[in-house]
Amino acid sequence: MIENQIWLDKIVRMALEEDLGAGDLTSDAIVDPQIRGRAVLEAREQMVLAGLPVFKRVFRLLSSGIEFECYFADGRPVPAGEKICTLSGSLSAILKAERTALNFMQRMSGIATLTREYVDKAGSGKTRILDTRKTAPGLRLLDKYAVRMGGGFNHRLGLSDGILIKDNHIAAVGSIDRAVALARENAPHTIKIEVEVENLTGVEEAITAGADVILLDNMTPDEIIKAVDLADGRVTIEASGGINLDNIREIAQTGVDLISVGALTHSARAVDISLEVIP
Amino acid sequence: MIENQIWLDKIVRMALEEDLGAGDLTSDAIVDPQIRGRAVLEAREQMVLAGLPVFKRVFRLLSSGIEFECYFADGRPVPAGEKICTLSGSLSAILKAERTALNFMQRMSGIATLTREYVDKAGSGKTRILDTRKTAPGLRLLDKYAVRMGGGFNHRLGLSDGILIKDNHIAAVGSIDRAVALARENAPHTIKIEVEVENLTGVEEAITAGADVILLDNMTPDEIIKAVDLADGRVTIEASGGINLDNIREIAQTGVDLISVGALTHSARAVDISLEVIP
Amino acid sequence: MIENQIWLDKIVRMALEEDLGAGDLTSDAIVDPQIRGRAVLEAREQMVLAGLPVFKRVFRLLSSGIEFECYFADGRPVPAGEKICTLSGSLSAILKAERTALNFMQRMSGIATLTREYVDKAGSGKTRILDTRKTAPGLRLLDKYAVRMGGGFNHRLGLSDGILIKDNHIAAVGSIDRAVALARENAPHTIKIEVEVENLTGVEEAITAGADVILLDNMTPDEIIKAVDLADGRVTIEASGGINLDNIREIAQTGVDLISVGALTHSARAVDISLEVIP
Amino acid sequence: MIENQIWLDKIVRMALEEDLGAGDLTSDAIVDPQIRGRAVLEAREQMVLAGLPVFKRVFRLLSSGIEFECYFADGRPVPAGEKICTLSGSLSAILKAERTALNFMQRMSGIATLTREYVDKAGSGKTRILDTRKTAPGLRLLDKYAVRMGGGFNHRLGLSDGILIKDNHIAAVGSIDRAVALARENAPHTIKIEVEVENLTGVEEAITAGADVILLDNMTPDEIIKAVDLADGRVTIEASGGINLDNIREIAQTGVDLISVGALTHSARAVDISLEVIP
Amino acid sequence: MIENQIWLDKIVRMALEEDLGAGDLTSDAIVDPQIRGRAVLEAREQMVLAGLPVFKRVFRLLSSGIEFECYFADGRPVPAGEKICTLSGSLSAILKAERTALNFMQRMSGIATLTREYVDKAGSGKTRILDTRKTAPGLRLLDKYAVRMGGGFNHRLGLSDGILIKDNHIAAVGSIDRAVALARENAPHTIKIEVEVENLTGVEEAITAGADVILLDNMTPDEIIKAVDLADGRVTIEASGGINLDNIREIAQTGVDLISVGALTHSARAVDISLEVIP
Amino acid sequence: MIENQIWLDKIVRMALEEDLGAGDLTSDAIVDPQIRGRAVLEAREQMVLAGLPVFKRVFRLLSSGIEFECYFADGRPVPAGEKICTLSGSLSAILKAERTALNFMQRMSGIATLTREYVDKAGSGKTRILDTRKTAPGLRLLDKYAVRMGGGFNHRLGLSDGILIKDNHIAAVGSIDRAVALARENAPHTIKIEVEVENLTGVEEAITAGADVILLDNMTPDEIIKAVDLADGRVTIEASGGINLDNIREIAQTGVDLISVGALTHSARAVDISLEVIP
Repeated sequence: MIENQIWLDKIVRMALEEDLGAGDLTSDAIVDPQIRGRAVLEAREQMVLAGLPVFKRVFRLLSSGIEFECYFADGRPVPAGEKICTLSGSLSAILKAERTALNFMQRMSGIATLTREYVDKAGSGKTRILDTRKTAPGLRLLDKYAVRMGGGFNHRLGLSDGILIKDNHIAAVGSIDRAVALARENAPHTIKIEVEVENLTGVEEAITAGADVILLDNMTPDEIIKAVDLADGRVTIEASGGINLDNIREIAQTGVDLISVGALTHSARAVDISLEVIP
Repeated sequence: MIENQIWLDKIVRMALEEDLGAGDLTSDAIVDPQIRGRAVLEAREQMVLAGLPVFKRVFRLLSSGIEFECYFADGRPVPAGEKICTLSGSLSAILKAERTALNFMQRMSGIATLTREYVDKAGSGKTRILDTRKTAPGLRLLDKYAVRMGGGFNHRLGLSDGILIKDNHIAAVGSIDRAVALARENAPHTIKIEVEVENLTGVEEAITAGADVILLDNMTPDEIIKAVDLADGRVTIEASGGINLDNIREIAQTGVDLISVGALTHSARAVDISLEVIP
Repeated sequence: MIENQIWLDKIVRMALEEDLGAGDLTSDAIVDPQIRGRAVLEAREQMVLAGLPVFKRVFRLLSSGIEFECYFADGRPVPAGEKICTLSGSLSAILKAERTALNFMQRMSGIATLTREYVDKAGSGKTRILDTRKTAPGLRLLDKYAVRMGGGFNHRLGLSDGILIKDNHIAAVGSIDRAVALARENAPHTIKIEVEVENLTGVEEAITAGADVILLDNMTPDEIIKAVDLADGRVTIEASGGINLDNIREIAQTGVDLISVGALTHSARAVDISLEVIP
Repeated sequence: MIENQIWLDKIVRMALEEDLGAGDLTSDAIVDPQIRGRAVLEAREQMVLAGLPVFKRVFRLLSSGIEFECYFADGRPVPAGEKICTLSGSLSAILKAERTALNFMQRMSGIATLTREYVDKAGSGKTRILDTRKTAPGLRLLDKYAVRMGGGFNHRLGLSDGILIKDNHIAAVGSIDRAVALARENAPHTIKIEVEVENLTGVEEAITAGADVILLDNMTPDEIIKAVDLADGRVTIEASGGINLDNIREIAQTGVDLISVGALTHSARAVDISLEVIP
Repeated sequence: MIENQIWLDKIVRMALEEDLGAGDLTSDAIVDPQIRGRAVLEAREQMVLAGLPVFKRVFRLLSSGIEFECYFADGRPVPAGEKICTLSGSLSAILKAERTALNFMQRMSGIATLTREYVDKAGSGKTRILDTRKTAPGLRLLDKYAVRMGGGFNHRLGLSDGILIKDNHIAAVGSIDRAVALARENAPHTIKIEVEVENLTGVEEAITAGADVILLDNMTPDEIIKAVDLADGRVTIEASGGINLDNIREIAQTGVDLISVGALTHSARAVDISLEVIP
Repeated sequence: MIENQIWLDKIVRMALEEDLGAGDLTSDAIVDPQIRGRAVLEAREQMVLAGLPVFKRVFRLLSSGIEFECYFADGRPVPAGEKICTLSGSLSAILKAERTALNFMQRMSGIATLTREYVDKAGSGKTRILDTRKTAPGLRLLDKYAVRMGGGFNHRLGLSDGILIKDNHIAAVGSIDRAVALARENAPHTIKIEVEVENLTGVEEAITAGADVILLDNMTPDEIIKAVDLADGRVTIEASGGINLDNIREIAQTGVDLISVGALTHSARAVDISLEVIP
């Protein structure tokens, strides 16, 4: 659905303006605008693909006549060395759009690939791997789309579509109970109330206060198991903080419902994808 | 100077809109807007700081009355556990701006820190470490600022403020000589002409063609040494491709003028910085 | 909190541009820009006030030196004939901003006043009066703020911060059960799942499917009572459709949790507020 | 001509962004994007239609392939129960655009319908029914278009395309005569000069001063008749203030040229229009 | 009043972005941001000043601390060699803003100076010198402000605040009479109806049709005198086409009310103004 | 390539909004939107054409169905009286777009025509004629495109894609040597370093400091000859200041590499181009 989003063209246009500025001095000086060309998009390492609609849109905004033939869809694994797409159209436009298009796709596929690693490591249980709001400013919707393509799930998009009561909120009103009551009083009925706690006492208080979801911040696997027991299916339990590829399986095996990982979006490296013009 | 940039408010505003949306459901429900608070920004690991003016601007756009006392400046190393700043002002505004401000600063300091690692590894010779155009879409100017804060230098900002003739440009007109001649004929006299080559023959052709800078793509240290010899100070030599923390010293020791590293901006991980409200 | 919203200046600026265009031909021709003036904002009928921060911002964007003394706050009832504020500053700026500022405040206070009527008619029970997405395009956040000022509550802001499964969604997949399962599978865990049904069979299916909220579309008070019984506190029940000032008390007395009323925002009339310059 | 307006897409895009945000959680979770659907737009009450080009544009911006077959044009009366259009195309896009498209059309048709009531009540004389600047912020051009579709006429669009000298302008320079002279001296020759007066003395002064149009503010039918006599065809006379469906005929029968009614745009209720997907 | 215009910052910001791009490479590299400086703005030739508020705004947007002391106001003649203002503040900001600020002021003062020449040549009669819509795209409001500063008057700002029926409009409906009738029927009552004619027959037809203003296109002084006679004070007469500094006095002496001159805005040369930093 | 620029639509849209505002009162009142028409674009004087892609885009944005047949390309000389294009399509759209389209093309062709005069006067030697940053705010990219169409070359686009060290920069650090060193240290390696000097001592210092380009400000032909001798092909020499059509040949014959002329863009008059509807 990303193709039909009102916001997509804005992001792509902004990125093209940033890179193109007044124009491409090199291509404008050297490449006859009449020349047509073909290029191959290729995975230089194994990856989960994400960003194809964005990638295409970059080229199309510069030259509506560029055509694509693609062999993989977003969310699919691509082995190293495989062709992802072939492009054909104005050579000059292909050269101008190349870097911007790859910057989107390499970042997004990097996030999808890392998410898939976490998901696979977590194992086949019911635990969902979630992203956070720790995304690159301006790119949140693309970062979160990439997480979904990697098999992860999205936490709230921003501050206005979810309630997450943290320590500072609790401190401001004195107790979890009071904070949850205020949230319930003021927030739309469409939104669940999630409370972040740091220990099992917090879990109990949050359950008593009527939280819908409890986020366990930086708790040990043992504590998490106890929290899951306390919850007993009445509230959703999310684990977060200090979770990495090494310990995610252990966390998942606690039976926790959700595990959120900031690194998915703030520290994924770009995967290696090349675009080569076919001579 | 970043404080006075016309573009800074645009980026910060976009990021705040992305995260805040219609408002912060949680803080608006729970935190009395009259309450004032204080918070500490702290480095949770060793890092090179970058992004302080952006960080401050995020808070100030939400509440002009927030005050900062900072103990480090952009570009300075911060040891793990050190306080970077203390903030005081509207607690509600601090809570709302926190994540957006940290997203900027953790990314930028991550880039600065990684750049500093590369610079230090490269050693104290004359070789400059450069960024590339492989930046997060929309954040290029911040990414490149962070590279400078880490001791690196900027390559061209985009396609309109530098000329870099690549294989596809050369292929389009048949020879390096012809490509350079066209660039010289059409480009502003204020811009140098750089040519990317893959072997020593290319280096010779580029020198003959009158290139100002030659980019050696994925060449071995031995080849780079020969290229530097061929250049003999008449043209600037840049090495790129496949360069990492393990081999950068060897590359730098070839006497090459410039080494550009895409990873500085496309694969830096966020450094760990916390903002804690003081009870 | 509306004062600190990033979006507020955008809306106010857009409205000023729309009315001012290239400038105020009349005031620019006649009123010496040095003249200062005072004006009184007065309620010409009884109302619930809403929009004061927007009202002030309109004037301040034209002339930062305009000062206000206000005697009522948003959400408060204002008797007919009472002064709401006095303004002082550049007379020319006051005249230019007047209509735009009043257009905001008369609409917003109109919505707050109508909402208050519905809330009062509904009685003092637990039932909340909600708005809908039937708002003036571009003004949703202000319309919904006005509803809150009138004692109402907000339904979801838009399509991305709430799930409401309607007949067409159900038809697309064949059953309420399947629709709810898909929503649960794909939607963020922070969002509740609401299902719109037209009869008691629907209510039962929705409960079985695990809906968090059930919207009863155009059902009679008798049916609503039965639905509330079926729900038995396990799911939240919302009534909607054909509800007006005449029947809202009867609906509220069914014990339903929520009543949503499109008319609050799509058919509120502007209340009468005047701004008179003091000679 | 509204279809070709440069500003139309801006308004429609803003409205879609406001409602869609990051996407439609419900439809994206449930409705397969491949499914095509058909829907019927139907008048649930008698109305004068306005907003068809805006309505269509909302859908087309989300999915250019949506097709429309329409049976009424803007400005035409539609009996209750009549089909206005049928739509076909992507079901998902139809569901996403529905509310936004209806919000525009219900408001605009509401304004057109109310305007038509006023026009019909005023009778078949020469008197024109005018709108005012009391429109929803951001929607002025659509509100005024709707007035035209209802058989009304537009007053000035904003402060820069008409001159209307009010009491405060007069007070600032001491006399109607001086105010008109200043306006004539400074304003473009393309713009008529209108003066608002509150009594017959004002009418005489305005005529003497050379006003092109005189606005009678809140004057009685008897006074209006005298003002029309005084004008004797040399100046255009507009009545305004306190005019409603009950007294407009009496006002019109005074022979006044223009009657302006703020309620047309600030207090029109939305008319009832439904969009039903055809199973 | 130009200082308070909502549109002013938009134009200034756009111009600064255009020139500054990512930053000022030269000043950022060389000038310590702490250094303060003073500069003198000086007229290098005799001119009528226009653009001071725009000039100041350019600097202030880069550095709010820059202070100005000015010795002339917009609309005043400045002899060659006179100081216009002195500035003091951040030297770096002064250097960055200089060119953009001068580009505005040299263009605007050039227009004001040329307008003053036309006005002076036309003589002291009642004839007004008008601009046209032949302005630089994006700068119309500034161009027209500059005309006023030079003693000229503004014709309509654009297509939506004036009616000018030209030959093509007349051809489309067959006669002046029909065109005027349609305009009267559809246009707001606040706008005068102007008809462009090419000969005396046209003048007669336009008067008969009830035009408020008649534009004589490219008519000789003798014809213009006859047209003025025909009008006999009942309609305003505007002359246009082929009017220059050599023939404007003759045209003005025909007694025509208005003379419009495209060259004021489309062909004014920039006047010479320097900004010198005081050592 | 100008056709594919991301920025083109922005400029054209801004210009159309500026002129059209809420709509074309005249054409909307008089011209049936169904009528189709044809029009001829004709050169009323000899000129070098520039702006055709912009001209077309103006019409196409209003009505995508307008078709063009053109007989000249940008950069070509057009004799007085020659047809440039014929247009056909919606008459109403043609009338609405006419003035905006001509405003672009008359300015751009005016710049191209003046540039060609300078280029021709300069003679057939190697000297390039350059523009400056003295362009109309907002139109720099179009102004500079027009210069290229007239046979000129572009100097830097703005402050971020070229280094030009002026007297104030030098004064800030004490010497040319220091200023050049700082520029070299901080600026990207892709950018040449140009130094502005006022006498031959400056030329020597700049050469010694390692400048790539030297701008001779307001120097006499004799001094320029000496500067060229001093440079001896090692640095590029640019002359600027006080250069006009009378003295450019003498300056060019000094052997200087570049001559920059502010008048090309700040003082070119609009050329006369007409658009006539074919009856």
